[in-house]
Amino acid sequence: MAKISMLGTGLIGSFYTQTLHGLRSRDRVVNVYSRSAERAKTFASEKGIPRWSSDLRDAIQNSESEIVIVGLPNDLHLEAVRLAAEAGKAVLCTKPLGRTAAEAREMLQAVEKTGVFAGYLEDLVYTPKTLKALASTRNGAMGRILWTRSRETHPGPHSAWFWDAARSGGGAIIDMGCHCIEIGRSFIGKDKRPLRAFCWGATQVHPIKAEDHAIGLIEYEGGAISQFEVSWTFRGGMDLRDEVSGTEGTIRLDHFLRTGFEMFTAAGEGGYVAEKAEGNIGWLFPVGDEAHELGYIHMFQDMLDAWEARREPMETFYDGYVVNAIIDACYKSMKSGRWEPVEIAAGVAAGGGKQAPATRPKGPEKASGRPQETRSGADQDPGRGKSGKGGFLVIKTERLPDGRIKSILKDKATGKVVEKID
Amino acid sequence: MAKISMLGTGLIGSFYTQTLHGLRSRDRVVNVYSRSAERAKTFASEKGIPRWSSDLRDAIQNSESEIVIVGLPNDLHLEAVRLAAEAGKAVLCTKPLGRTAAEAREMLQAVEKTGVFAGYLEDLVYTPKTLKALASTRNGAMGRILWTRSRETHPGPHSAWFWDAARSGGGAIIDMGCHCIEIGRSFIGKDKRPLRAFCWGATQVHPIKAEDHAIGLIEYEGGAISQFEVSWTFRGGMDLRDEVSGTEGTIRLDHFLRTGFEMFTAAGEGGYVAEKAEGNIGWLFPVGDEAHELGYIHMFQDMLDAWEARREPMETFYDGYVVNAIIDACYKSMKSGRWEPVEIAAGVAAGGGKQAPATRPKGPEKASGRPQETRSGADQDPGRGKSGKGGFLVIKTERLPDGRIKSILKDKATGKVVEKID
Amino acid sequence: MAKISMLGTGLIGSFYTQTLHGLRSRDRVVNVYSRSAERAKTFASEKGIPRWSSDLRDAIQNSESEIVIVGLPNDLHLEAVRLAAEAGKAVLCTKPLGRTAAEAREMLQAVEKTGVFAGYLEDLVYTPKTLKALASTRNGAMGRILWTRSRETHPGPHSAWFWDAARSGGGAIIDMGCHCIEIGRSFIGKDKRPLRAFCWGATQVHPIKAEDHAIGLIEYEGGAISQFEVSWTFRGGMDLRDEVSGTEGTIRLDHFLRTGFEMFTAAGEGGYVAEKAEGNIGWLFPVGDEAHELGYIHMFQDMLDAWEARREPMETFYDGYVVNAIIDACYKSMKSGRWEPVEIAAGVAAGGGKQAPATRPKGPEKASGRPQETRSGADQDPGRGKSGKGGFLVIKTERLPDGRIKSILKDKATGKVVEKID
Amino acid sequence: MAKISMLGTGLIGSFYTQTLHGLRSRDRVVNVYSRSAERAKTFASEKGIPRWSSDLRDAIQNSESEIVIVGLPNDLHLEAVRLAAEAGKAVLCTKPLGRTAAEAREMLQAVEKTGVFAGYLEDLVYTPKTLKALASTRNGAMGRILWTRSRETHPGPHSAWFWDAARSGGGAIIDMGCHCIEIGRSFIGKDKRPLRAFCWGATQVHPIKAEDHAIGLIEYEGGAISQFEVSWTFRGGMDLRDEVSGTEGTIRLDHFLRTGFEMFTAAGEGGYVAEKAEGNIGWLFPVGDEAHELGYIHMFQDMLDAWEARREPMETFYDGYVVNAIIDACYKSMKSGRWEPVEIAAGVAAGGGKQAPATRPKGPEKASGRPQETRSGADQDPGRGKSGKGGFLVIKTERLPDGRIKSILKDKATGKVVEKID
Repeated sequence: MAKISMLGTGLIGSFYTQTLHGLRSRDRVVNVYSRSAERAKTFASEKGIPRWSSDLRDAIQNSESEIVIVGLPNDLHLEAVRLAAEAGKAVLCTKPLGRTAAEAREMLQAVEKTGVFAGYLEDLVYTPKTLKALASTRNGAMGRILWTRSRETHPGPHSAWFWDAARSGGGAIIDMGCHCIEIGRSFIGKDKRPLRAFCWGATQVHPIKAEDHAIGLIEYEGGAISQFEVSWTFRGGMDLRDEVSGTEGTIRLDHFLRTGFEMFTAAGEGGYVAEKAEGNIGWLFPVGDEAHELGYIHMFQDMLDAWEARREPMETFYDGYVVNAIIDACYKSMKSGRWEPVEIAAGVAAGGGKQAPATRPKGPEKASGRPQETRSGADQDPGRGKSGKGGFLVIKTERLPDGRIKSILKDKATGKVVEKID
Repeated sequence: MAKISMLGTGLIGSFYTQTLHGLRSRDRVVNVYSRSAERAKTFASEKGIPRWSSDLRDAIQNSESEIVIVGLPNDLHLEAVRLAAEAGKAVLCTKPLGRTAAEAREMLQAVEKTGVFAGYLEDLVYTPKTLKALASTRNGAMGRILWTRSRETHPGPHSAWFWDAARSGGGAIIDMGCHCIEIGRSFIGKDKRPLRAFCWGATQVHPIKAEDHAIGLIEYEGGAISQFEVSWTFRGGMDLRDEVSGTEGTIRLDHFLRTGFEMFTAAGEGGYVAEKAEGNIGWLFPVGDEAHELGYIHMFQDMLDAWEARREPMETFYDGYVVNAIIDACYKSMKSGRWEPVEIAAGVAAGGGKQAPATRPKGPEKASGRPQETRSGADQDPGRGKSGKGGFLVIKTERLPDGRIKSILKDKATGKVVEKID
Repeated sequence: MAKISMLGTGLIGSFYTQTLHGLRSRDRVVNVYSRSAERAKTFASEKGIPRWSSDLRDAIQNSESEIVIVGLPNDLHLEAVRLAAEAGKAVLCTKPLGRTAAEAREMLQAVEKTGVFAGYLEDLVYTPKTLKALASTRNGAMGRILWTRSRETHPGPHSAWFWDAARSGGGAIIDMGCHCIEIGRSFIGKDKRPLRAFCWGATQVHPIKAEDHAIGLIEYEGGAISQFEVSWTFRGGMDLRDEVSGTEGTIRLDHFLRTGFEMFTAAGEGGYVAEKAEGNIGWLFPVGDEAHELGYIHMFQDMLDAWEARREPMETFYDGYVVNAIIDACYKSMKSGRWEPVEIAAGVAAGGGKQAPATRPKGPEKASGRPQETRSGADQDPGRGKSGKGGFLVIKTERLPDGRIKSILKDKATGKVVEKID
Repeated sequence: MAKISMLGTGLIGSFYTQTLHGLRSRDRVVNVYSRSAERAKTFASEKGIPRWSSDLRDAIQNSESEIVIVGLPNDLHLEAVRLAAEAGKAVLCTKPLGRTAAEAREMLQAVEKTGVFAGYLEDLVYTPKTLKALASTRNGAMGRILWTRSRETHPGPHSAWFWDAARSGGGAIIDMGCHCIEIGRSFIGKDKRPLRAFCWGATQVHPIKAEDHAIGLIEYEGGAISQFEVSWTFRGGMDLRDEVSGTEGTIRLDHFLRTGFEMFTAAGEGGYVAEKAEGNIGWLFPVGDEAHELGYIHMFQDMLDAWEARREPMETFYDGYVVNAIIDACYKSMKSGRWEPVEIAAGVAAGGGKQAPATRPKGPEKASGRPQETRSGADQDPGRGKSGKGGFLVIKTERLPDGRIKSILKDKATGKVVEKID
């Protein structure tokens, strides 16, 4: 049994907790942190968690938990990881590891210094399909890998902070490119060094400063090319596909829209269909068990098994660092219009360590997650990019699982992005 | 935590044990029974089970287990259930419950008499896709159900006893029709009484006395029609599909061959692709996590949660009994060529009870399961139905997960079906 | 070049004419008949046809056409065929050939007596996919055929007369079962005699006297089983699928809903998506070239090539007669609840002949065809089966290609079915 | 009726002629040219063409044909077009128009100067799916187009000259990128100017000097991005997919591998499955009517209808020129590693004209086309890139429709690429 502190009560914290408590699990979240005492308390009560806190340092240090899970907005990862490492606790951090490779490197150094167990919560390489496809690839079914394609597109994320490049570190690339890059890298082989990256990105639809659509290419040692496509402008649900091509074969994975589950309904059922599904009538493509299809279950299995067995998990902070280094090169290329080298610091490596003290944290919990789009097939997103009431631009609206409508708004005067729930 | 005795070390026992021990489970198989002491011992050692037995009564009575799982051939279900009920243990029995409704009814009465918790291990209504589709149906997305189709076809089962109608209770209908019937019934609504059944069945390919292909229709109170198609003659892998149609919508489920995972390999990888896959080169349709896709994980979750909560599981012995009653009507119709009424005894109902003594069990464990076909796309199954060496007809050959080749043979003189492993 | 008289200006006449004039064709419709002079005139003008008539006998006799195409309601096929045969003209008749085998036999005898060329316009065995699948089957790719499934379901036909069993000869079976039966028979082999049929049918949804949903089984000489599923109660578009299974392989054909063309649109485009598509927003499955996918193009190619070459077409009046004989057995079985023998008269065979006089025709043209459902994914068909205004029951409403709404109504007093266009 | 001269007797000439003569066409090829008199004669005899020639000038000038179709290798397009324009004949030229934009521009000027009708035979924008998807896009179903993806990959072309960059003008980009680029451009809108291109390309597998794999991005005026993926290294058949994404919707087209036709065969049928299919056992994805699915039928319909109506066809020489200009930018970018501007000469425009004289042509006919890969799923392409006998490297082997095996060989001493048929 693993005793866990969950940092963050947003949708990612919620998904993680549900997964950890789900099925016939022996693990428990014993402590939850949110910047807001009220949210922490409510979350604890709903999920059956005995203890909660609205003080980050306290949540990490003063708990019987052995493992800290960081489910906070990107700008808070470094501080939380540092505190956990200092407290000598195992730490699992959601994706992306940092907003930049420099931040990721600091996190990697923090856990190496104190020797704590650390895992990078990159769920999409852990989907059962991906795990099996990776095994077939390792077994030689593809021959030498020549090309990978990974695509994650949907109508845009749920929480305000995602749309604020200062807090998130960028746009669609930092949000989803991190998945696609690591998927491609996993098929090509982690022993192959990423050499250079090229990236196109643009703000095509939303009134934001970050890219809402990007396409990138990463060239690896040995000649393989890895392609990613990420977008917050896609219509029709969440498109989550991977393809691999090698000298001996090819693989196609579809994780969300064409998985052997198709439904037409003229009546609807008034509820949630699948993450980021658009509409709830007509032809729909529901997902059986989302936590499973998105890799959460097998990810935590590997993480906690590894922690118990004192071995490395499949996804380490080093992997998170490499992904950040590739993303850095992509952002640089987006500006320069040319290939940019992927810079991985010499001497940086995955590692473990022993234990550590702590510092004082603060800052809001991650209010993110994976709710469903409100936009029905029928309505046409009237507000996107247009003037909303009271000096705000509407970036996006969506229906929460509890039926309320959330709006992401941009203050026309200050440019600040906020969210509002009606 | 649930402490379990596993009866049977065949592939179904193996799949069940893997599922129960899998992911981050808190449950454990603490005792295993096989007719063969050697197999019991080996199984216990491989799966980390502390205790084993080759005496059925002993395995049930003299164990710290609280739950007995019956994973034995069909002709041994009744005895095992009776012993478990008498021993006051919760009992979960694999599908079909009985070989006939009469047998199933005896089992139902045995558990009702002693009041033990009882669950019917019908995994395919527990696949995550099916669970979600059932929920949507209950929520009204389909309107009133008019039609269901459930199809399970593959090139034939793995263990000799399946091919012996005296032991199994029939052919493809008893083997797989039980799944399809319960799937259809679940969508139509368990409150709707099955009225009558029509069935076509034939022995089209294999040199056996039971049907290797059948199509059935069940008409329900309210007018819905439920169609099943089962076959041991199908080529191309395991075809596992359900369809539902109602006044407001339609659902299509594909559980195995078109689930968003497609692979072409010219090289192969020398191993197992998916249950009953044919061949390992060319275009293949692997399955990410078979235990998940086949419903094992969610089935045991419901069973063990129900047992802990002292509530009924979704699938009870009563459900198993109704399925057997429908199968009886199908076999009768196959002979009469007309609709036959489904006869459900008055006063029979799902139920629980309290506790009980025990009797002396014996008999072989179930040698069944779900291994992969050996027949590659390339070779043409030369032996099927033709004379094998030494007075045997070859019914079927297949490759076991460990690489050995198993043959199902019929003694031309005695008609007895045996299996041989090379 | 073939000179053709088109009998009927309904949607089937329109589809046929478009196909015959389409692409770079050398054939021409030179004469068109409708009971209504106005419709005949309008049709002729729209399609560039030089001559029209509202007198059936005149349309057949007094024309420079060499070929007469019967695109009239089922109750007028016999008379039209008789007139054409008497006039010594080649005659192509739409499906089903007759309302009963007796009628079909009269038609067969009429063309045999005068020796005119005759073809049965069963388009769905002519889809390019079906033609190729049939070729692969003949080449041995499937081994011996064991099973076929053919399914045609949609929300119901377009013209009033279809819903009137007296005129059409029945319900969904006579409308669509004729396709499914001939598809199955073609895969199993036309040299195999259909022995017996079983059929379930019911009126599940619509306020009509004929079956709106049916499932049938036909057993052939040699043991193959052929299954059909037809429905006017299906939601989600037109489901048109065939499956074949043999000792060496299997085939799956999807003609309409999953053909490699998928579209999500939140905006719609205000128009026609595909025949019997429901709704025009959300996920849609359009069809590239419907005439091609439905077999019209290759059907007329075979018919006209055969006529020029003085050989038999792939589908003859004899085939139409066999299909009618199977349908007769199905209707008998629906009532008797048991297998019924398929009765094919001795001495009946496909054939040709030479020439003939003519008689006086009359009667309305076929107002049928393949328009699109109006029912959007969003609305719930409020009227189906419920009381409409003025003493009428609403059977069905649909949007015509020209945007108008057509209703099929049943007079509550007289039971008569009429159509109304708003 | 159109009277046509076919230049080239390779597989493209053969496919074109079959299409032009197919169905119930009124058009005829009346004259055929091949550099080899024997091939010209054989082709004429097989296809029922009354006249043949092995002299290019003669074939163009001395014929009753009104239209000349250029189905020759890329290096002979310019000369053939010039001769046709001078002879005052309408000219249709296969893709790509030129090897470079400069060549394409000369062709454009040649037809403009003499005013002859000219069409660019870009078949893949004419597939019925693409035509319908383009119509929906024009009707607003996608909103503003943001992204297109077009992919054409297979195991490599069939004729020696394709592998020789001097003759073909490049590798996979010039061969297939021309399709993908024009597909993307058609969805984005031909009124949108292509601004700049980025391209990655490499020689990953084959022992050639040109790219056998490339990925390109084209940015259009208005901000849309168009992505292409082309490869001669792909395994598993011919992958031909397009995707479109706009502010209101998305489209997915699959032209070859997942089109609603799936077949498993353990027996095979000893023949051709589909263009560039790999293997003929196991799961296969046949195509009903390839000429239809690949757009040939609708392409020639548009071309000949346009010619008769004296209007422009959908694809003009100007379109071919723009495509060449984009390809030029891609090749430049492949070397520079940065975005390169797409240079379209001012004053260049689509156009027509009136008539012209002629010059003396010569040169080999195009030996290309679309045969099927020999490589079965089982064998591992032992020769590719390895030393063949007698100082040759084997680039590729394939089975021709007539069963013979063709090898593409590279002379190790001279580097020359030749083909050999066994």
